[in-house]
Amino acid sequence: MTVNRFVNKDNMSLLTDLYELTMAQVYFNKGINGTAVFNFFIRPTNKRNYFLNAGLELLVDYLLNLKFTEEDIDFLRQTGRFSEEFLEYLRNFKFTGNLYAIDEGEIVFANEPIVQVEAPLIEAQIIETFLINTLQISILVATKAIRCYSVAEKAILVDFGLRRAHGTDAGMIASRSSYIGGFVGTSNVLAGKAFGIPIYGTMAHSFIMAHDTEEKAFEDFASVYPENTIFLVDTYDSLEGVKNAIKVAKKLGIKIKGIRLDSGDVATLSREARKLLDANGFRDAIIFVSGGINEYKIKELIQDKKAPIDGFGVGTELVTSADLPYLDCAYKLVEYERKPKIKLSRKKMTLPFKKQLFRIYKNGTIFKDIIGHFDEHFDDSVKMLKLYIENGELVRSLPSLKEIREKALINFKTVPNTFKSLNQYMTLTPEISQRLLKSAEELKEKLRLKQ
Amino acid sequence: MTVNRFVNKDNMSLLTDLYELTMAQVYFNKGINGTAVFNFFIRPTNKRNYFLNAGLELLVDYLLNLKFTEEDIDFLRQTGRFSEEFLEYLRNFKFTGNLYAIDEGEIVFANEPIVQVEAPLIEAQIIETFLINTLQISILVATKAIRCYSVAEKAILVDFGLRRAHGTDAGMIASRSSYIGGFVGTSNVLAGKAFGIPIYGTMAHSFIMAHDTEEKAFEDFASVYPENTIFLVDTYDSLEGVKNAIKVAKKLGIKIKGIRLDSGDVATLSREARKLLDANGFRDAIIFVSGGINEYKIKELIQDKKAPIDGFGVGTELVTSADLPYLDCAYKLVEYERKPKIKLSRKKMTLPFKKQLFRIYKNGTIFKDIIGHFDEHFDDSVKMLKLYIENGELVRSLPSLKEIREKALINFKTVPNTFKSLNQYMTLTPEISQRLLKSAEELKEKLRLKQ
Repeated sequence: MTVNRFVNKDNMSLLTDLYELTMAQVYFNKGINGTAVFNFFIRPTNKRNYFLNAGLELLVDYLLNLKFTEEDIDFLRQTGRFSEEFLEYLRNFKFTGNLYAIDEGEIVFANEPIVQVEAPLIEAQIIETFLINTLQISILVATKAIRCYSVAEKAILVDFGLRRAHGTDAGMIASRSSYIGGFVGTSNVLAGKAFGIPIYGTMAHSFIMAHDTEEKAFEDFASVYPENTIFLVDTYDSLEGVKNAIKVAKKLGIKIKGIRLDSGDVATLSREARKLLDANGFRDAIIFVSGGINEYKIKELIQDKKAPIDGFGVGTELVTSADLPYLDCAYKLVEYERKPKIKLSRKKMTLPFKKQLFRIYKNGTIFKDIIGHFDEHFDDSVKMLKLYIENGELVRSLPSLKEIREKALINFKTVPNTFKSLNQYMTLTPEISQRLLKSAEELKEKLRLKQ
Repeated sequence: MTVNRFVNKDNMSLLTDLYELTMAQVYFNKGINGTAVFNFFIRPTNKRNYFLNAGLELLVDYLLNLKFTEEDIDFLRQTGRFSEEFLEYLRNFKFTGNLYAIDEGEIVFANEPIVQVEAPLIEAQIIETFLINTLQISILVATKAIRCYSVAEKAILVDFGLRRAHGTDAGMIASRSSYIGGFVGTSNVLAGKAFGIPIYGTMAHSFIMAHDTEEKAFEDFASVYPENTIFLVDTYDSLEGVKNAIKVAKKLGIKIKGIRLDSGDVATLSREARKLLDANGFRDAIIFVSGGINEYKIKELIQDKKAPIDGFGVGTELVTSADLPYLDCAYKLVEYERKPKIKLSRKKMTLPFKKQLFRIYKNGTIFKDIIGHFDEHFDDSVKMLKLYIENGELVRSLPSLKEIREKALINFKTVPNTFKSLNQYMTLTPEISQRLLKSAEELKEKLRLKQ
């Protein structure tokens, strides 16, 4: 029988692709371990006009704690692929490089360097797989969340996605990322504990069905949670359900915290439910909607149909980023031993050199992003890549999740309004500085001549 | 700073939706904890004609080990939602129910009960979130894998998806599920260790770029792994890359294990590469292809274009099940205290009663599936739901992963050929037994009268 939870802080070093380690063995043998610079970036997709950056804290934690245990080393030995000298090197392995990164909660665009690793080549290589793994899902969900937030107006958003996330880690990251992206909380209890995110819950259809009648089910729940019951009303007939909730609340002499609609024509049902609740004096009762919700449905219900909905539980579509289940993202070598590096193969050309991303705001919105050499300067620009880890040590304090969330919602206001469209592809293409463009062209020319 | 790996075998009980625990509190207070039966099933989707079942071992492991630690209980206490008596109940919590399940590696269809839990209501409810979480991603990837396998003919398939999986757990489960679904191995080293899956690797573009020339890069790698080098040839120009691999192999006097094409028109490039390799005496060298591969591309390359490709690295599209990133799956109450249960809300009607799934084969292929009452009998049918856990104890031995894989590939042969189409929606709709149909109709009638 396998151990259920495969990944723990002690064995994360093996959570890597085999070639990272075999390449490392070769580098080790050949003494190729100079300073390398890698960039993590997202390639353009017409499904997202902007991205909300997230996941950095998880990456920092990984880099600061990465090690190979004796058990890992024993496993690697028995694969027959590694020398004792190299295994000894792994035994003492520690990330000793620099990490430059854009803050979590910042808006980023395709082709921009979001993370820049500068480290001995072997180290920079071994961390690749986890780095992409954790940043991709973090950014995917944070971006999906802020898209929901962008159209929800006053309605609150709660992450209901744990059961449909791709495994347990995705469930946890989705709770964290959606909170950054403007959600008020999650149904995921462990995320509440691990991240201090507010936890939310209502009741399930099975709860109603385990009782002989819906009314009895409502009464049982409300008598235990008199101030905290959101009645799930759609098990048999939604409006009858609302009436039963009202009946029970009156009988127990309590307020109705809210009702939840999980199926049917929720625009119409929410209006009818609102009328019933108001007519019976439950004006403070909220109407909460779940079931197949995404940013498009939120927009339709809140903005187009003006449905009186106070909150949404967003699950599957949020945590799987269903309309864009992966990012075409990459982690590419751009410099080795201070020499710029470039890949020429068709369609996937990369931009060489250690970089900085410069952002220029105008009237409170993002006006221009410039990718330049690391040491360039542009007036009135903000340098987006910040040094988080230097020589393997944390040199910048990490904000709390709450601070990241607050900053994200402020940053969201700097997104040009045209980019906020859910249907039209309108984005910012970062400029490449004159100096970087020129040096990249020279390098390409040189490489072509060499071939 | 948060601890990076959030989920471990001690805290999995909190990996649940808050409402599971608040409903449990209500059940506890009201003494509602009779035997409940829940069914896990997948709703129809026209994107999959059949599913490959997977994930059961992970669920069994969870059920056998589930507990609430003092730390969990302290967290729950400080949420202010739970009574001391209930927290004491959780302190002694253990899954004491029965688990009926279809074996891993079996073919299943929409609406069929894949897992049936029979347990005290509170227990059956608390496990819901994890059960859906782990089965969904396991089945999604196993099914995507067998679809790739179904069109790959003699080409081998390797999981390259860890970096693009949704988090670490999905990366591990994807390696496991794709192995069940006919893949020969994975690039994920930790999956190799945890599950005993063969691990595979080649080299990255960064490896080539870290050297001054491709030839030098090839020579460095091949001199360390003379019998085990797959040369990545597309960093600059794929066919020049093949020539460089040949040059290096001749210089070192070694065989070429293979070359990898990761971009460009791989149908044409593989043919040209094959010619070059053969002309130089490297007839055993394999041609391995990666980069945006899915079942459609494998079919196009192998079956339509007859490209001489010996293996594929399948990554992103496999591990995210990109064309179907989630299953519309559910875990529904079907019986409580031996009384059948049904949900009437529109479109999402459920089938009541504790069930058995009966499969009838004809000429070696699946001919008919019948969903019946648990105690029914059909001549020449196989009872698909087997008792794995009885009163909280494992009563059926779990096959090894290798055995599951072997069985899956045999089971795959029982899928009617028409269902194997990648483009046409042709599936099997399970019949409902006369007796079950009649009792379900009676129940519906009774409920409607009651309302």
